[in-house]
Amino acid sequence: MSVERIYLDHASGGILLPSVQKEMLRFLVETQASPGGGHREGREAREELEKARQRLATFLGVRDTEGVVFLSGGTEAIQSAIRGWGEVAGKGTIYLSEMEHPAVESAARALGKKEFTLARVPVDAEGRLKWGEMKAGSGKGLVCIHLAHHDLGMAQKISKARKFAEKVGAKLFIDATHGAGWVSFSVEDSGADLVAVSGHRLGAPKGSGALWIRSGTVWSPWLEGGRQEGDRRAGTENLPAIVGFGVAAEEWSKSGEHFRRDVAKSQQALAERIGRKIPMAKLHGPKLGGERNPAHLAFSFAGLEAESLALVLDRVGLAVRGGSGCVTREMRIPPAMKAIGAMPEEARALILFTLGLGTPHGKMEEAAERVLEGVKRLTAVLPV
Amino acid sequence: MSVERIYLDHASGGILLPSVQKEMLRFLVETQASPGGGHREGREAREELEKARQRLATFLGVRDTEGVVFLSGGTEAIQSAIRGWGEVAGKGTIYLSEMEHPAVESAARALGKKEFTLARVPVDAEGRLKWGEMKAGSGKGLVCIHLAHHDLGMAQKISKARKFAEKVGAKLFIDATHGAGWVSFSVEDSGADLVAVSGHRLGAPKGSGALWIRSGTVWSPWLEGGRQEGDRRAGTENLPAIVGFGVAAEEWSKSGEHFRRDVAKSQQALAERIGRKIPMAKLHGPKLGGERNPAHLAFSFAGLEAESLALVLDRVGLAVRGGSGCVTREMRIPPAMKAIGAMPEEARALILFTLGLGTPHGKMEEAAERVLEGVKRLTAVLPV
Repeated sequence: MSVERIYLDHASGGILLPSVQKEMLRFLVETQASPGGGHREGREAREELEKARQRLATFLGVRDTEGVVFLSGGTEAIQSAIRGWGEVAGKGTIYLSEMEHPAVESAARALGKKEFTLARVPVDAEGRLKWGEMKAGSGKGLVCIHLAHHDLGMAQKISKARKFAEKVGAKLFIDATHGAGWVSFSVEDSGADLVAVSGHRLGAPKGSGALWIRSGTVWSPWLEGGRQEGDRRAGTENLPAIVGFGVAAEEWSKSGEHFRRDVAKSQQALAERIGRKIPMAKLHGPKLGGERNPAHLAFSFAGLEAESLALVLDRVGLAVRGGSGCVTREMRIPPAMKAIGAMPEEARALILFTLGLGTPHGKMEEAAERVLEGVKRLTAVLPV
Repeated sequence: MSVERIYLDHASGGILLPSVQKEMLRFLVETQASPGGGHREGREAREELEKARQRLATFLGVRDTEGVVFLSGGTEAIQSAIRGWGEVAGKGTIYLSEMEHPAVESAARALGKKEFTLARVPVDAEGRLKWGEMKAGSGKGLVCIHLAHHDLGMAQKISKARKFAEKVGAKLFIDATHGAGWVSFSVEDSGADLVAVSGHRLGAPKGSGALWIRSGTVWSPWLEGGRQEGDRRAGTENLPAIVGFGVAAEEWSKSGEHFRRDVAKSQQALAERIGRKIPMAKLHGPKLGGERNPAHLAFSFAGLEAESLALVLDRVGLAVRGGSGCVTREMRIPPAMKAIGAMPEEARALILFTLGLGTPHGKMEEAAERVLEGVKRLTAVLPV
């Protein structure tokens, strides 16, 4: 018997927006001239590149289009932001929580091995960063904040990080690789100096990402070589991906409100149904509502083991992520669960349900039913 | 009047192989699940990823498939190789020529600012590296050699670099981003420890590249964060690009000899015709034949200025690259021209004609005719 699959792991990889697909197909059948060429094909490519840059700037809410640098994805954008700042700053303090995405954490740790101090921002029980408890460190500073948390779905209050950064005279880096689009956000209003965005969570292709750098920010490129992207990111431009990213950005500028509302409805439906059907299910991160990435739900099923439950759910036709969204092939307590003070048996039992463009609202009842079925099956085989 | 364009800037960006196109289209319309997911969609993605890895290994001629790491392109592969080695080595000597690709040069210089010495390999008048004149430097060593030169088209004798590396006890890095496929080459035979490959010069998509790392090589990842690619390259896998790269690699394994022979014929036809029609045209790099990338021709037109000539050629329907293939927006003497002792008026007048998959052999006469036309037009407007 084969059931129709329900795919709820969009944070790891979702669908392309149909308009993105269409535009990319055009670019995959034509000559792949580079924007660097002085010939007609090159000029046409350059126009497409700059159109995409303009679309990204509009989406991000920045006047300074030139600040947008295209690169290979969210991880590169994050590494490039933090290490590029560190390379020039030389020494100082990096402010970040204990539950940052591994890309942020590893970049900060790499600098921590050099002349930098890492100052950790405390976290409350729902995953809110507590900037009020932070003090100024020494030297130049970089405040790192995520727009939305990759495991908990908490949408952080950027204005608080901004105030803290201003108070201590630090630069502000926003990791918007989770949250961009899904959480209402304008770079200009945020006061950010560096912003990282990933394309594939916006219905754009994998291999697309952008770093926005405020004009005048001291920073040095992370990938050097050719003179692409105004000497800020070397390597032949991945134009099909960039063009796709541009189209997605434009769609979000036009229809973001609609995308968010749609997904929030599915989120609420799914969360309520899981809560109603499965008393042991516990929602982590913020309550349903305003402070939350509407595409993201983190439930624990205490007593069950996340990887096993995810496998059983897969068997009943539901694709979800077991454990932290960014640690695979290793059983590990997600750092965010530790940071919010979750019990170990909850931390080991975390399942991420991530929605996205094209998630069918009408299937949330069935999805919750499958979660119940999976929980029952796994519980049945456990020793009493 | 509109003439049919002739595009001879394939090194900057060529066409996708039809089979690559077809396979990528399949991946752009389906759900974009990530190989990291434990669910069925994720497992299917992982199978595709590993199939591509196997195809790359076969293409490269390596038994150790696990040594293949997928990343965003040639530049990242080069940076990752050199800086990843330097990060662990700590100090030592990097052996390279004065005419390396900017990605190699900038990575080496970055290490040169730290505890590393750069030892420069001399070059003969055709662009051959003269390993016989090199002496051992101090500390750990990395020998850097390009498989084919990005401006001159010289296919280097890898065996000489290997002997030198063995003699001084250095590791061997081969930058095969230019030359892979086009120049007969087996990684296993080369004795290389690190090899960088770019996808887009093989009819694979932009945004695809690979680094091969010999098992046991001391090296540390350049992009950290998630645990993709066996902890060697973080960031959501760009599966459509990787799959496309895999298909291209397989095509080359099967039909490489045919691709090379086809393009060599076009190269010879174009070179002979340019030489015959335009006495001032001078071919740089090696003579036509065995030591040459068959997809690459570098001609100078002494007295003319490369960028201007390229613009005039564009007007008569021929897309070529004026000046070095990897420096744009800046008039500069290509370092390779200096290294081989070219006269300044030749160095300023370098035009690259790069062929590729799908270059129509029958158009070489017309292409040469357009070069003649362009040279005449530009000469006519120059002051006597």
